[in-house]
Amino acid sequence: MKVLVINCGSSSLKYQVLDMTNEVLEAKGLVERIGMEGSVITHEKIGMDKFKLVTPMADHKDAIGHVLDALVDADHGIVKDMSEIGAVGHRVVHAGEKYAESVVIDDAVLKTLEECVELAPLHNPPNLLGIAACRELMPDTPMVAVFDTAFHQTMPPESYIYAIPYEYYEKYGIRRYGFHGTSHKYVAERASDILNVNINDLKIITCHLGNGASVSAIKRGVCIDTSMGFTPLEGLVMGTRSGDIDPAIVTYIREKEHLAQGEANEILNKKSGVLGISGVSSDFRDLEAAAAEGNERALLAIKVFAHKVRFYIGAYIAEMNGVDAIVFTAGVGENDVSMRDIICNDLGNLGIKLDVVKNKVRGKEMIISRDDSRVKIILIPTNEELMIARDTYRLCQPRV
Amino acid sequence: MKVLVINCGSSSLKYQVLDMTNEVLEAKGLVERIGMEGSVITHEKIGMDKFKLVTPMADHKDAIGHVLDALVDADHGIVKDMSEIGAVGHRVVHAGEKYAESVVIDDAVLKTLEECVELAPLHNPPNLLGIAACRELMPDTPMVAVFDTAFHQTMPPESYIYAIPYEYYEKYGIRRYGFHGTSHKYVAERASDILNVNINDLKIITCHLGNGASVSAIKRGVCIDTSMGFTPLEGLVMGTRSGDIDPAIVTYIREKEHLAQGEANEILNKKSGVLGISGVSSDFRDLEAAAAEGNERALLAIKVFAHKVRFYIGAYIAEMNGVDAIVFTAGVGENDVSMRDIICNDLGNLGIKLDVVKNKVRGKEMIISRDDSRVKIILIPTNEELMIARDTYRLCQPRV
Repeated sequence: MKVLVINCGSSSLKYQVLDMTNEVLEAKGLVERIGMEGSVITHEKIGMDKFKLVTPMADHKDAIGHVLDALVDADHGIVKDMSEIGAVGHRVVHAGEKYAESVVIDDAVLKTLEECVELAPLHNPPNLLGIAACRELMPDTPMVAVFDTAFHQTMPPESYIYAIPYEYYEKYGIRRYGFHGTSHKYVAERASDILNVNINDLKIITCHLGNGASVSAIKRGVCIDTSMGFTPLEGLVMGTRSGDIDPAIVTYIREKEHLAQGEANEILNKKSGVLGISGVSSDFRDLEAAAAEGNERALLAIKVFAHKVRFYIGAYIAEMNGVDAIVFTAGVGENDVSMRDIICNDLGNLGIKLDVVKNKVRGKEMIISRDDSRVKIILIPTNEELMIARDTYRLCQPRV
Repeated sequence: MKVLVINCGSSSLKYQVLDMTNEVLEAKGLVERIGMEGSVITHEKIGMDKFKLVTPMADHKDAIGHVLDALVDADHGIVKDMSEIGAVGHRVVHAGEKYAESVVIDDAVLKTLEECVELAPLHNPPNLLGIAACRELMPDTPMVAVFDTAFHQTMPPESYIYAIPYEYYEKYGIRRYGFHGTSHKYVAERASDILNVNINDLKIITCHLGNGASVSAIKRGVCIDTSMGFTPLEGLVMGTRSGDIDPAIVTYIREKEHLAQGEANEILNKKSGVLGISGVSSDFRDLEAAAAEGNERALLAIKVFAHKVRFYIGAYIAEMNGVDAIVFTAGVGENDVSMRDIICNDLGNLGIKLDVVKNKVRGKEMIISRDDSRVKIILIPTNEELMIARDTYRLCQPRV
């Protein structure tokens, strides 16, 4: 069965088609500037050159229409007609406490997801637009929603309850949810495969370090804590997000800077993180270049970032009473050799010893700890699309 | 030399007199309801019964006047006249980045401390009122300020810089300061004495668990990180303070609850913590009683509190690449047997093993880890007044 995977943002959309009989990627692409001047689709049939088409797309339905056109295109397509696509898997950011697993989409599910919009007002609406557009254009194809929050629903209350008036949890659902769940789950399962140890016998800390970044503690295959919280703002320092700060700072800067409702939140999400510290960039390649040239704030941003990752690694070692493997994934985690080096430096007494030679690798599955390191350090490129396709395939297999 | 130690709150004042030739406590007391109906001083000459005097006190000068009267009282006093008091040590909460050590108070120091009021608008003003009153009443007695923040000034930038726009640090001094410094320093030094190991050879995690609570990482006698931040709101869950939360929650509850400027901060400081979770009390004795009777939210509050302490212990183990001793101090840390048990439970793989029998102790200096525990767990009653007296004595000794 071929599965189409859709990840809809507010003005962009990523997609892949995988043949799930052998988990082979057949096509992938990106639509940008949906509903704006200069809408464009970039499509790639695996093994062929990309093609790019600039054409007006008023909304997500237009965009998905162009995706479907590309998939059946005589030259660049991978199917004769859309009936060959057995199912569609949609990434959905937030399912609140409603779903701890992926789910086949029907009207009742859609209604439930509408209720979660308030928890993720920026992310869920475009996800839902993508689902609606697909249902309209492919009314007979089963669809599955795969949630960023689902994997973290196993956390115990002491990990997810904030020490604020309990009624805020009851009335507004304010608790730790966690995000990047599909990625944390994927790399944890891969780590188990690579180590050839049953995941039920492992304690794993997964570091998803991209422009957004989070760490999870995974004990016996189950997430017991994660650094992102009620929103993706909490936890690690990120490209432009503050991560953990004294909550009193929110009120303080609002008063000092005479900010309007919501502006402090905007600053903490868009102008903070390593960009805020350095004043240089949210991109670690820029920071490392600037630091190499003597920019002290760029160097400071790198140090603060690494410090916080180490902090969470330690915290989760305590929560799990030990750790067997630490996984690095996502943009920075997969490609930033020197950042992994700084993070893992001077942790030898905890049994964590990076092999500085093996560590000189980018974007490749590999154990990068020393042979005498009790804790295995593993680089694993993430693959959220494959996870979405797998869940979709599993839930949509024709009953025999 | 006898040293008077003063700790001034907004409507209360604690004091002690110590003879520093042998560090003996001679008298102590408490003034309450300053500037309110029913002002009262409770004074105790060590070895005698307490006496209590209800008398109007309009301000801190009145209050300190009554303290001085008590000290020279024919029956309850400990000196013939105030000239026998060689120096006064004042607790001051916040010195910003101005002082990393205690300092003899002069006009220049007072001016600097005035500048720090903005950083601690609730705490510094009463501290300064106390200093002014003492200077007026004892113009010839040298005075020393001992700061809650001073001990933490050794933190490296990666511990104290937040990932927010750097200009907020430059313009407003927004950074991690940390508090309870006098207590953390005292118990770390005692731990070194008790273990008979030079503090320069130790990695210590000090858990000051009272109604306010904080953890510090102390490496070679120097604080390298602490859980309280820009204000005493950050870090651990406390009696009524939230500790760490997703900073987006501040804005969210402000909008949802239609709160005015500053009200969210008030809720996070006064109605959160274990009180907020449990709805029962900010006092752990009440929580444990309620939990024992089956109150689930009281039990949850206890679990969330312990979870966060464990979290920080782990984080600081990573920051220091190990730990030699974990110290419990302050109200909960010294007296709550079951809380220490929950916190230290299931950390054996980190070399941390509580002796559940030895742990059945309250308010007494004692090693409470098992003999086979690589990490020593030590109960040490804190004594901030003695630290203040020591610094005061050291800085005010007559030059020979």
